[in-house]
Amino acid sequence: MGSIYITVILLLFLQYSTLAHGGYSFLQSVFESSWTSPESYKDDLEDIANPCCTFPCENRGVCMTTGFGSFTCDCENTGFYGKFCEKPTFWKRVVVLLKPSPDLIHLLLTEKQYDWIWSIVNWFPSLSNAIMRKVYLIRGAVVDSPPTYTSEHEYITYEAYGNTSYFARALPPIPKDCPKPMGVVGPTELPDVDMLVEKLMKRTTFKPEPQGSNALFTFFAQHFTHQFFKTDFKRGPGFQWGGHGVDVSHVYGKDKHSENILRSFHNGKLRMQEINGEMWPLLTKDADVPMHYPERVPQEIRFAVGHKDFGLLPGLFMYATIWMREHNRVCDILKGEHPEWDDERLFQTTKLVILGETIKIVVEDYVQHLSNYRYQLTFKPELLFGESHQYSNRITAEFNHMYHWHPLMPEEFNISGTTYTVSDFLFRPDLVVKHGMKDFVEGLMNQRAGAFTHHNHNKYTLPVAKQTILHGRTLRYQSFNQYRERFGLRAYRSFEEMTGETEVARDLEEMYGDINAVEFYVGIVVEKTRPHAMFGSTVIELGGPFSVKGLMSAPICSPQYWKPSTFGGDVGFDLIKTATLEKLFCLNMNTAECPKISFKVPNFDKTKDLLNEEL
Amino acid sequence: MGSIYITVILLLFLQYSTLAHGGYSFLQSVFESSWTSPESYKDDLEDIANPCCTFPCENRGVCMTTGFGSFTCDCENTGFYGKFCEKPTFWKRVVVLLKPSPDLIHLLLTEKQYDWIWSIVNWFPSLSNAIMRKVYLIRGAVVDSPPTYTSEHEYITYEAYGNTSYFARALPPIPKDCPKPMGVVGPTELPDVDMLVEKLMKRTTFKPEPQGSNALFTFFAQHFTHQFFKTDFKRGPGFQWGGHGVDVSHVYGKDKHSENILRSFHNGKLRMQEINGEMWPLLTKDADVPMHYPERVPQEIRFAVGHKDFGLLPGLFMYATIWMREHNRVCDILKGEHPEWDDERLFQTTKLVILGETIKIVVEDYVQHLSNYRYQLTFKPELLFGESHQYSNRITAEFNHMYHWHPLMPEEFNISGTTYTVSDFLFRPDLVVKHGMKDFVEGLMNQRAGAFTHHNHNKYTLPVAKQTILHGRTLRYQSFNQYRERFGLRAYRSFEEMTGETEVARDLEEMYGDINAVEFYVGIVVEKTRPHAMFGSTVIELGGPFSVKGLMSAPICSPQYWKPSTFGGDVGFDLIKTATLEKLFCLNMNTAECPKISFKVPNFDKTKDLLNEEL
Repeated sequence: MGSIYITVILLLFLQYSTLAHGGYSFLQSVFESSWTSPESYKDDLEDIANPCCTFPCENRGVCMTTGFGSFTCDCENTGFYGKFCEKPTFWKRVVVLLKPSPDLIHLLLTEKQYDWIWSIVNWFPSLSNAIMRKVYLIRGAVVDSPPTYTSEHEYITYEAYGNTSYFARALPPIPKDCPKPMGVVGPTELPDVDMLVEKLMKRTTFKPEPQGSNALFTFFAQHFTHQFFKTDFKRGPGFQWGGHGVDVSHVYGKDKHSENILRSFHNGKLRMQEINGEMWPLLTKDADVPMHYPERVPQEIRFAVGHKDFGLLPGLFMYATIWMREHNRVCDILKGEHPEWDDERLFQTTKLVILGETIKIVVEDYVQHLSNYRYQLTFKPELLFGESHQYSNRITAEFNHMYHWHPLMPEEFNISGTTYTVSDFLFRPDLVVKHGMKDFVEGLMNQRAGAFTHHNHNKYTLPVAKQTILHGRTLRYQSFNQYRERFGLRAYRSFEEMTGETEVARDLEEMYGDINAVEFYVGIVVEKTRPHAMFGSTVIELGGPFSVKGLMSAPICSPQYWKPSTFGGDVGFDLIKTATLEKLFCLNMNTAECPKISFKVPNFDKTKDLLNEEL
Repeated sequence: MGSIYITVILLLFLQYSTLAHGGYSFLQSVFESSWTSPESYKDDLEDIANPCCTFPCENRGVCMTTGFGSFTCDCENTGFYGKFCEKPTFWKRVVVLLKPSPDLIHLLLTEKQYDWIWSIVNWFPSLSNAIMRKVYLIRGAVVDSPPTYTSEHEYITYEAYGNTSYFARALPPIPKDCPKPMGVVGPTELPDVDMLVEKLMKRTTFKPEPQGSNALFTFFAQHFTHQFFKTDFKRGPGFQWGGHGVDVSHVYGKDKHSENILRSFHNGKLRMQEINGEMWPLLTKDADVPMHYPERVPQEIRFAVGHKDFGLLPGLFMYATIWMREHNRVCDILKGEHPEWDDERLFQTTKLVILGETIKIVVEDYVQHLSNYRYQLTFKPELLFGESHQYSNRITAEFNHMYHWHPLMPEEFNISGTTYTVSDFLFRPDLVVKHGMKDFVEGLMNQRAGAFTHHNHNKYTLPVAKQTILHGRTLRYQSFNQYRERFGLRAYRSFEEMTGETEVARDLEEMYGDINAVEFYVGIVVEKTRPHAMFGSTVIELGGPFSVKGLMSAPICSPQYWKPSTFGGDVGFDLIKTATLEKLFCLNMNTAECPKISFKVPNFDKTKDLLNEEL
């Protein structure tokens, strides 16, 4: 039945797709003998020592040199053939033609006029499930699992699989022996990075996020992703010290040693202290886990939580606290169900519940918000049972860079009447304690986030943008356009097409000369935003697969884990299945009336948004 | 088409199966309302504090306590329901009935009278492929992946997935609060282990392996499995220090540091030295990798290879040497294909070729030999593309114990006329150098291995058997019969049924009292051998899944890796696809005429086997 539904939907897509593309004959294109003609520069690409510097292989074919000045494209398992893997097999041609473009799908999912489609879909659980399964599978399949590349080698190695201290790579590095930094196109020397961030990224006036996202969202993104984006700067930007996935290490610490320090070893709970009638994490003097605080930070505000960097900003400390309270709340519930369980079992089982709640909230609140889809996303691991899906994950360096969303950081925060600048926030976890959880949360909720776009990095985050670009050069990232093609998007043909305007386009053209030479992170920041979206198409089409893959590959999603007994029975299983962002906060704040918790500023009405200059 | 073939084969199996089982009505059993009636002890199992000590749940249901003295079986995702997960759903009932018994399949695969089946199968590549795919899938699906249990917890934890320093567990440990060591049955104190190994395992006269296996096989098993059986004895028998799979770390060392010491950094090759006109590994004084040699071993015979324990026996050193020679041979071939490649790329690519050759040889020579199947096993990773299969692996503690095949070790070795006892072999890698590779290999080939059975551990390996049993107790292994049920076998009902004789059966009964209390490793050793097999059914049905899963989950088997460019092009890919044990040796020995290399003693004729007392 599921496949019939899918077929109907596909045909519906197709119908629209062909109309939108001007009625181009479907059958004609299926039977056409030539697919795409390789671009002209490919004619003389054997003139250079390493022709793979021109990235001649299309459709994810693998370029391999075969002696000096010659190469071959390995098209195996791609569904394409030909010298450049440019010709689809018959069936691939049908599949490609039936597949609607990513931009079209995005429109269908976000435009108000297609609400009727999603009303129908949400009406039929089996149809909705079939679509969600396809979302999981199609998004997940974009990510190479097991991982193939690291930043050390431009070819497949066992290291990529066996050495988890590397970030993986979605695309291999540009070969070291290429004539130019970006291969064969663009400048011989990449633009001066100080000039670049000054000219393209520095915030002049605050640009608000057009969908109405608030700072509760900003800090959610930051706290959630820091559990797996853990660059090992000492070893270099290609290395990391994390667990490569959603492992709630930001709550429980990076290893068993830290976890043991945070545990009370009584009824499964974490150690917390009461201040002003609320429960808070201990200080490092009482719980000596590794935390990064500069010398100047006084001992009495050095709170100890699961992630060493969560003392940096009160928003991070707030989320760490909320999760610790939730842990202890779940412990009480499980203890009620299982008076016979010891501390260890209560702790371990609660940790699995917290992991499940995390993924549920990320899929159904966080991703739902950032996607702005009118289709309700659901977290249903059982939809992947029996499918070709890997329950293991690796974080890629590119996913980390793509997630450098620092423009979302506003200039200031108003917490129950007091205005704090970003500078006032730095290394002040105690501000959450001072104002109390409820007032702090309300403050973040009312604070509009910044737009993810050019000229919107504040002075504290501009150095991060600079560092990210430099890291991209050290890691020899392929160009922004190469990444677009890797993730199923058409390469941009002009700077105007990329940015959707002319001024930034002109600056970019001056710097790079060739559209195919624009660097990865630069492209991510300057790319025009998709309609009704917080981001450009590249962030969405690159971030979507990595997110879905990362979330659905947690071990609790596998058939052996995803059952009541793993979580202490139906009660624990239901805690996961009914978790929401709102409950996470409301059940863990000392308040009779809980404010409406959301990732949007309250009562946001896009049409009346005075903050947004674009209107 | 594949599914039609499978259906035909299944019906053929069914036909035979029902006949063999006395024409029991198929339809009647499908529609029967009651499946199996829970055994009588389950009636009063709520009288003890932790009813899970009785292992009440069937068909892989998970037992969870629900307060003191009560429990529930979580049957989710098992296809069964009912208080003990004892009732199959309708479709599960059909599947179970259609499925031939493991013993029947074994007979079909090993009895000469069914040769006609395999002749037909081998005649049609698509049929043969369909069967091989089913072998991969059915065997692989028996293993929990991601892993669920460790030896620390009798319930699912995130640790089981996230902490790779643990061995995984196929079955959780017996709960700590059970009334008896094996749960609720058997003795209050387990048999004295010295008495046990003396009475059941000590070799009195050498019993030869009935299928004609030789010492080349013995050492292959030992060298191959030591790459992933790496108990961390300092931390305890539940911990390990390896990479949880086939990672050729026995050739290249346990980490990058060791690997770098073994590398020449020239043309991709490993460092070797010439002695007597042959290439051998360096000594530790020249290549300081971690090696375990006792004080007394002189510096000039302390050879340095990828595994610290491979100095222990010349057979292990021989395999390490052969693989290093093969590495350097492959480097030369790839260098010929790729004059443009640097040392690093030649090294990394050759390592992937060596990994591929290893798996190919293990599947098609080693497993083929030890299974004694008349159906030709094949290594074809592409058969799993698009299937539900996890490309990741964890070694379980039970797989390690099950692979303690020390009875295979003979009493002595004759190498070109000189007879060595096992004692003469200890820490004498130089013996291979002294005799030369060819004579040493021939010596091992002609030496009959020991039978894997009771009363066949020699005096050097008897302490290992004792240690293994003690470790099993520390790890609180469930009983041998529980493991049989876990791996789809019927629990034995009597000691005679288990051993196939009366004397050992009587001794066992005296020690354990209850057939359901026999310990795991004791059962593995004393179990009767299957017809035409080297092992009993439990070793085969437990080892098969772990082996298949381990071999087919190497990253090179995934669609992104399994293509020519990964291995340097068609030439490298073909090296893997045509690798054999014979070529491994013949292409790496200084000899014009290579002896016929095999895992059987030459010209072995079972019907005329004078060594074997059983005939």
